[in-house]
Amino acid sequence: MFSKASRHLATATLVAGLGVIGATAALSESHVDRAVAAAIEARQAHMTLYAHNLGLLGGMARGNIDYDATVASAAAANLAALASMDQSRYWPAGSDSFEIEGTRALPAIWDNIDDVMAKSMALTEASAKMETAAGEGLEALQAAIGAVGGACGGCHEDYREPDE
Amino acid sequence: MFSKASRHLATATLVAGLGVIGATAALSESHVDRAVAAAIEARQAHMTLYAHNLGLLGGMARGNIDYDATVASAAAANLAALASMDQSRYWPAGSDSFEIEGTRALPAIWDNIDDVMAKSMALTEASAKMETAAGEGLEALQAAIGAVGGACGGCHEDYREPDE
Repeated sequence: MFSKASRHLATATLVAGLGVIGATAALSESHVDRAVAAAIEARQAHMTLYAHNLGLLGGMARGNIDYDATVASAAAANLAALASMDQSRYWPAGSDSFEIEGTRALPAIWDNIDDVMAKSMALTEASAKMETAAGEGLEALQAAIGAVGGACGGCHEDYREPDE
Repeated sequence: MFSKASRHLATATLVAGLGVIGATAALSESHVDRAVAAAIEARQAHMTLYAHNLGLLGGMARGNIDYDATVASAAAANLAALASMDQSRYWPAGSDSFEIEGTRALPAIWDNIDDVMAKSMALTEASAKMETAAGEGLEALQAAIGAVGGACGGCHEDYREPDE
């Protein structure tokens, strides 16, 4: 049983813990539904974390960053964790680039959900292989990274507005 | 063996996949080391994803969002995945709020690493319990959320600058 008093306490603790979810500058300028803005902010945050971990692995693959099995493994495990997360709340109807300023997500996403899910699964699989390979030496990492980058690109080419 | 040509191909694919990691507006205005800016952007993205998932669970706990076992479980699994990720690259020296505009991470973090790690572990444990509880009914979710919010708040109270 969860009493009213303890529920209030939990809520207060939660608010103190969370802080307030701030919309990005670009999104807050328009009168965007708050849930849509939060979803866009979350999916962009998710992409930032993909990039942060893949950027390190890519740097090692290219020889710009010294290979370190422990560091590479941690980044690859992060990537695999991210690629396994549920993303269904990231894509509410009306959150595409034709409707909203500040997102590059093309409306085609919502017309091709099966293909988007297949491409998403390709990233999950490539990331799982990278998680195994990353700690096994630079050549193993290099052999695994093409499929990860390819999976990212596979979705971006079809479903993301080109950079201006 | 990873030939020079295939390495270039992998790099090109990777760059196409990733796009460019953009620093946030606040961070790009100052002449912040690029790696530090990327680390701050990544840890803030990670916090955004905590908030996105915990916000849903908190909304259900408070009765503002209808309880749904599947949706709650997915958010709790996301939270647990996030809390299990390696965060060591998020906190480079010199990325505190005394040095950098656009972060609220107090320098005390770097003076109390053991305590920060203990608080981080508390979140990992509370999130693991939430992952089990979230699908077991609203009361189980409500019973688990206080510890999650408390773990967030435990770190924020000591190591994050108060909101202005």
